[in-house]
Order: sequence, then C-alpha cells, then structure tokens
Amino acid sequence: MPHHLERDLTRLKEEILRLGAMVERALDDAIRALIDRDEDLARQVVEGDHLIDEREVEIEEECLKILALHQPVAIDLRILITALKVNNDLERVGDLAQNIARRSTFLARHPPLNLPLDIEGMSHKARAMVRASLDSLVNLDADKARAVCVSDDEIDHSLKESYKHLQAYMMNHAEAIPRALNHLSVARHLERIADHATNIAEDVIFLLEGKVVRHRELS
Amino acid sequence: MPHHLERDLTRLKEEILRLGAMVERALDDAIRALIDRDEDLARQVVEGDHLIDEREVEIEEECLKILALHQPVAIDLRILITALKVNNDLERVGDLAQNIARRSTFLARHPPLNLPLDIEGMSHKARAMVRASLDSLVNLDADKARAVCVSDDEIDHSLKESYKHLQAYMMNHAEAIPRALNHLSVARHLERIADHATNIAEDVIFLLEGKVVRHRELS
Repeated sequence: MPHHLERDLTRLKEEILRLGAMVERALDDAIRALIDRDEDLARQVVEGDHLIDEREVEIEEECLKILALHQPVAIDLRILITALKVNNDLERVGDLAQNIARRSTFLARHPPLNLPLDIEGMSHKARAMVRASLDSLVNLDADKARAVCVSDDEIDHSLKESYKHLQAYMMNHAEAIPRALNHLSVARHLERIADHATNIAEDVIFLLEGKVVRHRELS
Repeated sequence: MPHHLERDLTRLKEEILRLGAMVERALDDAIRALIDRDEDLARQVVEGDHLIDEREVEIEEECLKILALHQPVAIDLRILITALKVNNDLERVGDLAQNIARRSTFLARHPPLNLPLDIEGMSHKARAMVRASLDSLVNLDADKARAVCVSDDEIDHSLKESYKHLQAYMMNHAEAIPRALNHLSVARHLERIADHATNIAEDVIFLLEGKVVRHRELS
C-alpha cells in the first residue's frame, strides 16, 4: 500500500507541474498579446482556458481519490493538502491570464496609449513570481518560497503607483479613459496573479515546515 | 474513535459558522460605513480583519489535526475538505470587506458623488449571496446552493453595467475621477465577494453530491 501511495503522489506532483506549465504558457501568451497588440494570440488564451479548468477538476478528483484510498498521514497528508491548494491557485492564475487576454483584445483594437506606467515591468515581476513559486515546489526550497512572499510587496507597491499615475492621466485625457481603465484592470490582474504565486509559496513553506505562514511576518 | 470524530466535526462546523458570522458582520459594517460615510465604522472593519485571519489559520490547523488523527473517509472526508475550502473563502470575503472599508474612508473624506450606479443594490445582492451560501451549508441544502450560483451571473452583469456608466461619467467629470475609481473598486470587490459565495455554494453541492460543479453548467 505505501508503495502505491508513493507512486500516486509522484504522479500527482507531475500533473500539478503539467498544469503549472499550461498556466505559465497562458500567462506568457496573455502578456505577449498585450504587448504585441496581438488579437489572435489573445483569442487563443481565452479559448484555451477551459482546458485549464478541466485539468483542475481532474486533479482535485485525483487528490480526493488518493486521500480516500490511502488515508495518508503526516508528510503525505500535507503533500495532498498542498496539492489541492496549489491546484486551485493555478486555476485562478489561468482565469486571470484569460482576463488579461480579454483586455488585450480591447486595447489592440484601439490606438495605443503612451501611459506613465510600467505594465511590462509588472508583468515580468508577476510572471517571475509564478515561476519561482513553482520552482520552490519542485525543489522543495523554502528559501525560494520566502523570496516570493517578499516580492509580493513590490508588486503591491507598483499597483499603488500605477493607480496614482493613471488617475492623474485620466483627469487630463478624458478621451483615453476607456483605454486607461483597461490598463488599470490589467495591473490589478497582475497584482492578483502575484497574490496567487504568494499563496503557492506559502503552501510550500507549510509543506516543508508544517506551519501556516499566511498573515504572519516572515522571519 | 468514530464518536470522537463526530464530536470534532460538529465543533468544526460550529467554528466555521462562527467565522461566517464574523465575516458577515465585517461585510455589513463595511457596506454601512460606505453608505453612511462613517469613518469610525470603516476603521473598525480594517482593524478587526486580523481577528478573521487568525481564526482562519486556527480552523485550518484544526482541520489538519482531525484529518491526521481520525483519517476520515467518504462523507467525513468530504466534510473536512469542504471545511478547508469554505474557511479559505470566508477569509477572503473578510479581506474584501476590509478593502471596501478602506475605500469608504477615502469616499467619506470627499464630497459625495451622485453616480449613475447602484452600489447599494449590488451590496445587498452580494450580502444576500454570502448569507444564502452559509445557509445552504448549515441546512445542507443543494437547491439553495444552486440558487447562489445563478445569482452570481446577475452580479457579473451589474458590474459590467457599472463599469460602462462610470466610464461615461468620468469622461464628463474629470474632477470626480478619483472618487469614481474608488466606487469602481468597491463594485469589483462586491463582485469578488459574490464569487467567493459561489465557491462556498459549489463546495456545498460537492459535499452533498460528491461531484465538482465548478466550470460546469448547473442542471
């Protein structure tokens, strides 16, 4: 029985990482669609989201099957609970990538704005956090996971700055308000993606150390 | 052992409902602070959020303890997984109530706007969905849970309408943009609260019927 459990957990980890790769791809494409004003690519992201949704449901069902069948304890139980949570966060990142793609479609159809904000920089930061959170999971690396939690504060700061700049910009460019609001939505989605990466990192710390670090100061 | 498990699950359910009551209270106060322009009440919501965070962590630790100790199967396992998820959703609703309270503080300090949107109506809908999702959990009522999922579409529609009206309003009232953006944030937070209520309702359906309904059409 323990042998089967080990095999099932290994397969589950592979499936989570495969879902992670799908989500990373969707996020990359959404960001590229935004920057390159590429409507086709944006449409692909929107149309592909249901595949991520389906994988998430399958992985959750797999987790519950393993729980019911093997009744794991200690570290194996923590692995399963972590898998359930990471699975959920990845699906949300997929949803947010889809939202960014929808905004990109709108923006690609309207003249570009020269806005005083660094969406590309925020995108790369959020993207790097998702990657680092998945790396921390693959390599069971608590230090890397802690670094993700720290990066989250930077993104929060960037969003606040973006908000201030966009607000001032809109007050002087009424005709640009619809486009500026779409950029603001993208910035918010990026900030929420960073939040989900942080959740994943916190789950990795929980997995490794058995303690819940959310809402607590990281030492 | 089964006797202890039953006792532990009953206590867990009571704790989740207690957390639900705390979150409902925070949401009520945040909405009231917004409508009555009451800075003191808004501050109380912001300052009280850490209590919700702490309860969430304690409840999660309790869930894991029960899982490890009793290794429940079948319906008992589903109850525990549901508790873990509902706990998480409730904490997020608490966070969003706190965000609404922060926006209320800003709005209370600036002259009121006569905006073409029904924040009060959206608030009541989102509030009713949280209440109905918790009722569906207490009474194990799948029909009530399904009704929550249907209401979610109404809130999504309201947000889209609000967005359109606010955009037009901002284009004609540059000086009101900062306040209008704060109202837009409140509308978005309400829509996300409705999403979390929907998650809870979906978890109740999963609990009762053992099937995952998210991303699927409700029959």
